[in-house]
Amino acid sequence: MQEKPDYQTLGPIDYLFNRFRKIRNYTTKLCAPLAPEDFVVQPIVDVSPPKWHLGHTTWFFENFILVPNHKGYKLFNKRYNYIFNSYYENAGDRILRSNRGNLSRPLLKDVLDYRKHVDQHLVELIGKLDLDSPLLGLIELGLQHEQQHQELLITDLKYIFGNNPLFPVYQENDGDIISEFSRETCSTNYEKIDGGIYQIGHQGNSFCYDNELGIHDVYIKEFSSRATLITNREFLEFINDKGYENHNLWLSEGFEWVKKHNITAPEYWFRKGENWVNYTLTGIKPIVLDAPVCHVSYYEADAFAQWKGERLATEFEREVSSKKIDSAGRWEWTNSAYLPYPGFKKADGALGEYNGKFMVNQMVLKGASTATSIGHSRPSYRNFFHPQLRWQYTGIRLTKNN
Amino acid sequence: MQEKPDYQTLGPIDYLFNRFRKIRNYTTKLCAPLAPEDFVVQPIVDVSPPKWHLGHTTWFFENFILVPNHKGYKLFNKRYNYIFNSYYENAGDRILRSNRGNLSRPLLKDVLDYRKHVDQHLVELIGKLDLDSPLLGLIELGLQHEQQHQELLITDLKYIFGNNPLFPVYQENDGDIISEFSRETCSTNYEKIDGGIYQIGHQGNSFCYDNELGIHDVYIKEFSSRATLITNREFLEFINDKGYENHNLWLSEGFEWVKKHNITAPEYWFRKGENWVNYTLTGIKPIVLDAPVCHVSYYEADAFAQWKGERLATEFEREVSSKKIDSAGRWEWTNSAYLPYPGFKKADGALGEYNGKFMVNQMVLKGASTATSIGHSRPSYRNFFHPQLRWQYTGIRLTKNN
Amino acid sequence: MQEKPDYQTLGPIDYLFNRFRKIRNYTTKLCAPLAPEDFVVQPIVDVSPPKWHLGHTTWFFENFILVPNHKGYKLFNKRYNYIFNSYYENAGDRILRSNRGNLSRPLLKDVLDYRKHVDQHLVELIGKLDLDSPLLGLIELGLQHEQQHQELLITDLKYIFGNNPLFPVYQENDGDIISEFSRETCSTNYEKIDGGIYQIGHQGNSFCYDNELGIHDVYIKEFSSRATLITNREFLEFINDKGYENHNLWLSEGFEWVKKHNITAPEYWFRKGENWVNYTLTGIKPIVLDAPVCHVSYYEADAFAQWKGERLATEFEREVSSKKIDSAGRWEWTNSAYLPYPGFKKADGALGEYNGKFMVNQMVLKGASTATSIGHSRPSYRNFFHPQLRWQYTGIRLTKNN
Amino acid sequence: MQEKPDYQTLGPIDYLFNRFRKIRNYTTKLCAPLAPEDFVVQPIVDVSPPKWHLGHTTWFFENFILVPNHKGYKLFNKRYNYIFNSYYENAGDRILRSNRGNLSRPLLKDVLDYRKHVDQHLVELIGKLDLDSPLLGLIELGLQHEQQHQELLITDLKYIFGNNPLFPVYQENDGDIISEFSRETCSTNYEKIDGGIYQIGHQGNSFCYDNELGIHDVYIKEFSSRATLITNREFLEFINDKGYENHNLWLSEGFEWVKKHNITAPEYWFRKGENWVNYTLTGIKPIVLDAPVCHVSYYEADAFAQWKGERLATEFEREVSSKKIDSAGRWEWTNSAYLPYPGFKKADGALGEYNGKFMVNQMVLKGASTATSIGHSRPSYRNFFHPQLRWQYTGIRLTKNN
Repeated sequence: MQEKPDYQTLGPIDYLFNRFRKIRNYTTKLCAPLAPEDFVVQPIVDVSPPKWHLGHTTWFFENFILVPNHKGYKLFNKRYNYIFNSYYENAGDRILRSNRGNLSRPLLKDVLDYRKHVDQHLVELIGKLDLDSPLLGLIELGLQHEQQHQELLITDLKYIFGNNPLFPVYQENDGDIISEFSRETCSTNYEKIDGGIYQIGHQGNSFCYDNELGIHDVYIKEFSSRATLITNREFLEFINDKGYENHNLWLSEGFEWVKKHNITAPEYWFRKGENWVNYTLTGIKPIVLDAPVCHVSYYEADAFAQWKGERLATEFEREVSSKKIDSAGRWEWTNSAYLPYPGFKKADGALGEYNGKFMVNQMVLKGASTATSIGHSRPSYRNFFHPQLRWQYTGIRLTKNN
Repeated sequence: MQEKPDYQTLGPIDYLFNRFRKIRNYTTKLCAPLAPEDFVVQPIVDVSPPKWHLGHTTWFFENFILVPNHKGYKLFNKRYNYIFNSYYENAGDRILRSNRGNLSRPLLKDVLDYRKHVDQHLVELIGKLDLDSPLLGLIELGLQHEQQHQELLITDLKYIFGNNPLFPVYQENDGDIISEFSRETCSTNYEKIDGGIYQIGHQGNSFCYDNELGIHDVYIKEFSSRATLITNREFLEFINDKGYENHNLWLSEGFEWVKKHNITAPEYWFRKGENWVNYTLTGIKPIVLDAPVCHVSYYEADAFAQWKGERLATEFEREVSSKKIDSAGRWEWTNSAYLPYPGFKKADGALGEYNGKFMVNQMVLKGASTATSIGHSRPSYRNFFHPQLRWQYTGIRLTKNN
Repeated sequence: MQEKPDYQTLGPIDYLFNRFRKIRNYTTKLCAPLAPEDFVVQPIVDVSPPKWHLGHTTWFFENFILVPNHKGYKLFNKRYNYIFNSYYENAGDRILRSNRGNLSRPLLKDVLDYRKHVDQHLVELIGKLDLDSPLLGLIELGLQHEQQHQELLITDLKYIFGNNPLFPVYQENDGDIISEFSRETCSTNYEKIDGGIYQIGHQGNSFCYDNELGIHDVYIKEFSSRATLITNREFLEFINDKGYENHNLWLSEGFEWVKKHNITAPEYWFRKGENWVNYTLTGIKPIVLDAPVCHVSYYEADAFAQWKGERLATEFEREVSSKKIDSAGRWEWTNSAYLPYPGFKKADGALGEYNGKFMVNQMVLKGASTATSIGHSRPSYRNFFHPQLRWQYTGIRLTKNN
Repeated sequence: MQEKPDYQTLGPIDYLFNRFRKIRNYTTKLCAPLAPEDFVVQPIVDVSPPKWHLGHTTWFFENFILVPNHKGYKLFNKRYNYIFNSYYENAGDRILRSNRGNLSRPLLKDVLDYRKHVDQHLVELIGKLDLDSPLLGLIELGLQHEQQHQELLITDLKYIFGNNPLFPVYQENDGDIISEFSRETCSTNYEKIDGGIYQIGHQGNSFCYDNELGIHDVYIKEFSSRATLITNREFLEFINDKGYENHNLWLSEGFEWVKKHNITAPEYWFRKGENWVNYTLTGIKPIVLDAPVCHVSYYEADAFAQWKGERLATEFEREVSSKKIDSAGRWEWTNSAYLPYPGFKKADGALGEYNGKFMVNQMVLKGASTATSIGHSRPSYRNFFHPQLRWQYTGIRLTKNN
């Protein structure tokens, strides 16, 4: 877990130095339990090899900050642009996403050297910056980007280990590096949220992504939100009630997904005789009944809500309720599609590709997960994934009309 | 084109008789230019064979109205449930959608006999109904359902003919059966719509689908809507400006779609030397520059809006603007995903599958098209399709913030 | 069933007139039980719509004989080359094979007109030919080609009907048009064939395909061939002994095919309670135990042979044994891959594509089937199909080493 | 390169000790240039991760020799059976072949420990064997199997490196470990081989695979074989003559393969301006014009032969010509499908799956390649691959009829 640097006692440049080092180091700290072989594989297209995350976050700084702004900077390796560009059409050709796991080279040590090389030049650059330099914002974007990949790094290595027949252990005890099991009191309490017009979107001057900008009014009718997340205990009732077999609970595409992939439980759950166990970062363990259910798709969250006769909140409702209800270790699927805010404007050039071009066929998730880096999320944060994906730490919070 | 029956001068049962006959007859009238062979094929999975539409709409009446309500009714053919059930899990097994075009039998004449058989029994049933029978609503649903399939029948046969190397002619002159080319004055006028809280959803007691129910307040900021649809002339400018090649205009999944299918123009457009021509129901014809552009996907509509620096309206904005702006022969892609209204409740049983289970990964379209049966659409009507589809009469209307 | 024309009593030109008319008419006679809708569909890529067979065989005469040789001949429709070319790269662009079933046009009547048009001009041309004209051989090739498509027409319409949930009847009684059930005495007699060097390939001056040419010596060791084909009775024993589940009997790609497609019996067999029934051209019927098993793939034939501890013959063994053993209504899978004879030479131009370019990944079948036109096959005939295909009338004959 | 152990001066058990150690050590020696990351990836399904080869060859000894024959032997890790079983249905469940590259664990060092563990117990077992033990033959099979995987190890790591944008170097100089460029004199000399009856199949008591057994007579007509392999120089002429674009040279499935994968040259060839270069184990290098062409598919070999007006030899012709013509560093595609010899009998149980179940849809290759372990091949050796594969060291030798 990262310590939050103290902005007050340091000047802004020293603060940035500090923050830069801590965030960059945290990424490699997350990799400490891995062997070189673990950095390479990509069992599904959504999962990237850990080595690729290490390289891509570094390339982001190199390509968007050092190359255009640091005079005399020499590329560490000119082929790395091809290897570590994720999806920026404006940044040139790149390998197919599905080929990331076919690359044994560059070796881990080469990628770590790449990180050192870029860090060193970035620290040089930071040292020369004026307090009002526009690069400060760009570096902050690079750090936020790195934090997003820290979360992906965790979820991706969980997928890599959780789908290996040897089920390797990432940490001896829950919480050594990541705490997966924030135990919640199983409650059916609701918080009532008043109706009215609310301002939606990021307020203030602190960092946010472009997709949160454009504060706008949204009318929300009074509703009630569950105070706590749905637990494994409740989800087991859904399973035992044959929820996965009852087509009336499911979206049509969701039920096709269930049948095609023979889904009978959340990701990482396995039958062991009469019981269910699940893969965790500490190995195969019994289901913790009072922990929030995790690794469910939007389809499962929606079907569960149907089964309960309730519904998922919209992203606006969840943003508004965040004043009363904290997030609790799981990204919460909302019933809002990921679409532009009315005043959304995407940036020019490559960075305009960061968020805007994904605004179709994905659902918004609110809150934060146990794998989210501290300070990374906020009420206006809009996470988004396709509805069938569930390798993130995703959970369910129910809402009902009053 | 259908004549609208006069509700005032007839009693409600006679009105229903009249309406039933007219709508059922209009379906077969649309098929008049077809030969038996034309009723059979399914060139893509989204297109159904005309014969299947004739049978499915009939099965809808048989299965949901006659079987449970008409004592002593005997199924015309018990295998037809398997053949003509579209997607109702509650109504039992059915052939794979992609196999509809593999069925040479039942023959057209058998399907026409099926229609007669069901019509006859339905007329009998209508004759016995009380004025307050709940079946009246169900029959109306069957008629609305038939009207939806009338539009699909037209778009599907256009696809069947427009992808045949012989390019058969459906009607000699535009307007003989369907009028495709409502010519709009090419204008760049905007209508300003005031901001405020609006009631969204179907009002009154007339027919609507369940997905329009649950009137709810939505706050809308002042905006301006184009008074007319985008024309072929304007869309050609987009093409000539290499709009299809400029990834910065496109959603990521949209640009992948463009590249994978090598899309360079709307559906049915073909290069002929230096010019573009397009397939119409009257055959291959030059592009009518002042007609509204047609057969574009959501991806193309969105990319065009990006190119213009404007945007698509939300479904709420379009519903509100319908007081000032008529629809003009094209379904208008909105920038709203097809999701349940806050108070959406789906019906019990099979009819609950009519709309609700499709509420993911699709976009809402508003208005109506030249192929929409008269009286079928309304401002609260929510049409929906996946963003890549474009065999419907879909067009573009732009909106901008003030 | 065709009558064999009498070559002796007619001159060669009259004989050809006669033969041309009879063969062309037999094709349309086979279509007599079909309605226009039946001519259109293509349920799998290997099956062509009957209408396409009618057009393609006609195109073969038009394109290879009339166009280059009949002065002043005008194409019936210049788009037909695109529609009815099967696989001749030298004859220009053509629709994708998988799209043949998407074409409702040309209508059946247009294709019949096309046949008349071409027949008429061909008869004119025949009337002008010299006795030594090279066109005589080309016309004979067109007729042999038509006979091949007569067999495909039957197997294709059987597939179309046998995969329709209504299981339409093609003929009232077996033998009305096609006799499917040549009943064989179930025997386990063997015919011993002496070892030695044999001449393989077509001998004499009568018609044969290019792939039969190049007589060459093959040394064959003494072997014994079953005198009769494997019956349904014997194949049922294989099924009941769990032959489809015993991987040790199967080729690896065969067992993958079994699992992927959930194969548990020959094509057209269906479980009815405890029993098996099968679709025949006279409808769904009980299995005739003493009839030769039919509609099995090479994989099934090979697995059955493994189960019996015997083997399939090579194409050379089968050619040699044809002096003692007749074919009996089923094409017999051999254990020979379809490869060129040592002296194989393909013709120049398009007709060189007739056979030679398919000489990989297919297995040779010998004999003839109940659907083979009379006089079409001969001992040196080399039929060939991919090992997983079974919509032809394919059966099993076993061989063993002495 | 391995030294051949001297059978004469050692007793048979010592000889086996020696041979066992040398062959097992050679496998790890081939891996010396690799980093742990290189052992993990599987860029195409045909290529296995080097780590998997190390484990699978070890599992073969453990599963087929130690477990049934070495009393008290404890499995190194009982999950390894699932991970390292390749295709033996009789040996239980196993991971999908396409998932081999998704496994970061077991780590390289675990696999090396596994090798040590199994080697140690096998050496113990060998020490106890009688001279007439049937295990001697089984151990020899394990060693031959290991040699096959040595060749696959080389071709697979070449594919892994040759498809990495960094093009890593495996050896500094050709011949350090593997010699890829046996330079042949470019000649068009032919060797004439007399016609007659030849005995085909393995003769004598030395080791061979079951697919070589069953000596049988084959009649061969006089023919002439090229004395040398086709060189890059000759293959370039084919390319420059637009051989890849001329459909008349290609098998139909071959030309589809060319178009689908946009094939324009052998595997590992890249355009560099006007010239071609190719990836070799020493990095990207110019084409050596006088070296034998390498990494071509059967389709390319056959098309080249068509272009030359000659043909590929049958496997029988090549076996017979091996008395006059040596192999020269490339596996030679023959024009024979991989099918059982007339008297082929597969072994009982799992080892019966070694060869027999692959006898369909593959072509025989004769000779040996530069990557074949010394002493592994012989004239009766039957290598086999699907016709589109070309990551092996495959080349072309032409034959013609006299």
